[in-house]
Amino acid sequence: MAKMEDIVSLCKRRGFIFPGSDVYGGMAGTWDFGPLGVMLKRNLMQAWWNFWVDQRDDMYGVDAAIIMNPRTWQASGHVDTFNDPLVECKECHARLRADKLVDGATESITTDEFLAAGVKCPICGKQDWSEIRKFNMMFETHVGPVNDEKSVAYLRPETAQGIFTNFKNVVDTIYPDLPFGIAQQGKAFRNEISPRDFILRDRECSQMEIEYFVRPDDWEKAFEKMRAAQHVFLEEIVGLPVEKLRDYDVPEEDRAHYSRRTVDIMFDYPNGEEELMGLAYRTDFDLKNIERESGKSMEYRDKNTGETFIPHVIEPSIGVERLFLAVLSGAYWEDGDRIVLKLSENLAPYKFCVSPLLKNKPELVAKAKEVYRQLKEKYIFVTWDDSGNIGKRYKKQDEIGTPKCVVVDFDSLEDDSVTVRDRDTTEQTRVKISEL
Amino acid sequence: MAKMEDIVSLCKRRGFIFPGSDVYGGMAGTWDFGPLGVMLKRNLMQAWWNFWVDQRDDMYGVDAAIIMNPRTWQASGHVDTFNDPLVECKECHARLRADKLVDGATESITTDEFLAAGVKCPICGKQDWSEIRKFNMMFETHVGPVNDEKSVAYLRPETAQGIFTNFKNVVDTIYPDLPFGIAQQGKAFRNEISPRDFILRDRECSQMEIEYFVRPDDWEKAFEKMRAAQHVFLEEIVGLPVEKLRDYDVPEEDRAHYSRRTVDIMFDYPNGEEELMGLAYRTDFDLKNIERESGKSMEYRDKNTGETFIPHVIEPSIGVERLFLAVLSGAYWEDGDRIVLKLSENLAPYKFCVSPLLKNKPELVAKAKEVYRQLKEKYIFVTWDDSGNIGKRYKKQDEIGTPKCVVVDFDSLEDDSVTVRDRDTTEQTRVKISEL
Repeated sequence: MAKMEDIVSLCKRRGFIFPGSDVYGGMAGTWDFGPLGVMLKRNLMQAWWNFWVDQRDDMYGVDAAIIMNPRTWQASGHVDTFNDPLVECKECHARLRADKLVDGATESITTDEFLAAGVKCPICGKQDWSEIRKFNMMFETHVGPVNDEKSVAYLRPETAQGIFTNFKNVVDTIYPDLPFGIAQQGKAFRNEISPRDFILRDRECSQMEIEYFVRPDDWEKAFEKMRAAQHVFLEEIVGLPVEKLRDYDVPEEDRAHYSRRTVDIMFDYPNGEEELMGLAYRTDFDLKNIERESGKSMEYRDKNTGETFIPHVIEPSIGVERLFLAVLSGAYWEDGDRIVLKLSENLAPYKFCVSPLLKNKPELVAKAKEVYRQLKEKYIFVTWDDSGNIGKRYKKQDEIGTPKCVVVDFDSLEDDSVTVRDRDTTEQTRVKISEL
Repeated sequence: MAKMEDIVSLCKRRGFIFPGSDVYGGMAGTWDFGPLGVMLKRNLMQAWWNFWVDQRDDMYGVDAAIIMNPRTWQASGHVDTFNDPLVECKECHARLRADKLVDGATESITTDEFLAAGVKCPICGKQDWSEIRKFNMMFETHVGPVNDEKSVAYLRPETAQGIFTNFKNVVDTIYPDLPFGIAQQGKAFRNEISPRDFILRDRECSQMEIEYFVRPDDWEKAFEKMRAAQHVFLEEIVGLPVEKLRDYDVPEEDRAHYSRRTVDIMFDYPNGEEELMGLAYRTDFDLKNIERESGKSMEYRDKNTGETFIPHVIEPSIGVERLFLAVLSGAYWEDGDRIVLKLSENLAPYKFCVSPLLKNKPELVAKAKEVYRQLKEKYIFVTWDDSGNIGKRYKKQDEIGTPKCVVVDFDSLEDDSVTVRDRDTTEQTRVKISEL
């Protein structure tokens, strides 16, 4: 079983993920994707879009602005309810999550409950606390030249509202039949007080969300279909190990207030089980909120029956970083002193690595370049490596998940064949260049 | 020649681009891409990444966080120099760009020059002005629970610094030979006082930038190569009309302070010529700033000679929205009362539209669905349209740039052929279904 620190270390060592603003000592809760990480992230985002949007007949994309009219977040409830319970140590003025300081506490902890627990400040050791204060997790900014209440805006804390606010625009330009979905990929921001667990709880993440609009009576059927599709996506398209996935039917008391049913797909991460992908039945909660706040009708008119109603919504939702870490955790494999990322071929950043056996033999290098050109033209994602010795190159390619290493040696000059070494089995086979 | 309002209207009518937060009366300077817009935007971004990164051997991607350590913007000079000159009307308290109120003025206008021009407030008509005050165009926010000077952070005003700050990380994990480039696509934010010109001057945009690192002596050669590549990209890959493009060698007094040479590729937009893609020789300005601010060496060590030095930088840079609007302006074409988007096949959101001649004939619909399935399996980007009559469907498909409309009629049931109608010529030809 992979440990989190092994994965973090591999990510930094091989250029998947660096701490954000690393050169300046970092910026808590932010992460930068490096060359290999961008390739894997792009593959994951493209696989999602292809599966959920392009291949289907009932999905449409939007790409809404990150800075939205603040009434969006009044209507959605985020201004009033997107809060963490904070306490301040009156001695050292540290502000901390009250619920994280008390074993077993939830976000609804009261000041009395907190004080009764007799917690000491983990920074200065004193025990002199303020009341619990609610802290809104949306990043605030000001738009335009004046910094006052009227110019306040927020960085979106979720992509979902960028979809709901465009519901009418999509209906009025595309005229889709129900059921249909609107999909969005994009950044979302949460001012986490204690970002942690590598990229799992960060301040800036990329979400991939669908709001799937259905007739109110059809929600259960649509919910089960989406649930099945999520498993196809995670297991067959992304190739996550089935034994690390578990459906969790969230009980009423733990569901978001807008949801009448939620099933989270949990993943067995190195630090424990965590939500990977969520499926929520949001009823007509969001469209009704928008109708109330905007004064505009969110009704849908059935083209055949003439009937009008507000559609209900099923929401499959996943964070790119959570998916990225699940993929790395699932693929990370130690075989003796070999570290291997067993990425599926469609996700691996590079499909082939081409090397000359020796770097200082121009005829080998020339032949290997020729093979590289040929493979790159066909597969695009091909890397060249002539550094160190062959052993070191294999080690590196194993760690970045390259399925096949192609080595050009002296025999290649004679027989137009190369050695192809398999990442997972380390088996080497001799293959004609023309048959690669 | 297309007029801007025609393009804006088409964008909204057909679901390319909606005003941001439309349902709440908008959010100035933000725009939401609708279903068709997302498809075109994705095609453009993918075409860029494919041409500049995937197809080349010397390019690596990064995807850095939007919220960076604020020292980034100290080092880059943005905190001190990324300013607009604002004046306030003491009567109505409007804050306005001083340089925009005086004909021919530049951003370096002084208060004396401004007052001497005798401008009246365009809002209230009075002439009682404050001093000119510099207004920083970076959006400010606070990270963590405390709102004080120490927690200030900014939304990145450009993607370039997310590349420069990762220079060492990339070098230390990938060990690339010079010259090599680091590419990034992502959002950037500017608190424009007067957003205008549709998506040309918005508050939130997507940039596509490359920092190409070269030996100091090689900059001119690399500059010319990049310049040629930019034209290949814009003219051959994106297919912009050559007569609308013009190279503008920016004279010293108009160049950014860090640039020793800049050539902008200008595009003839509906509202006049504007910068589309920039090419700047940034010397070692940015890496030296980071070295000074971080105290860490930004030197590159040549693996063969052992020589160490700070590389110089050539930067090709383009905004997705500017490219998007250039593509629409170039493709927009009125042919009598026909409006046509002459998008190239690789950019068009849909490659085919499939229709049954009549909607109420089940045998036609079934046959057309079969053709749709077949084409979708092969080309993915295929749309179905059985609304209105054929004329209306052609009109719609012309406006969204679909190259071919395929119509299934009664003869199709007999001869397994369909009518294929060409967007640009409106010519209709009869084609065997198996040969589509």
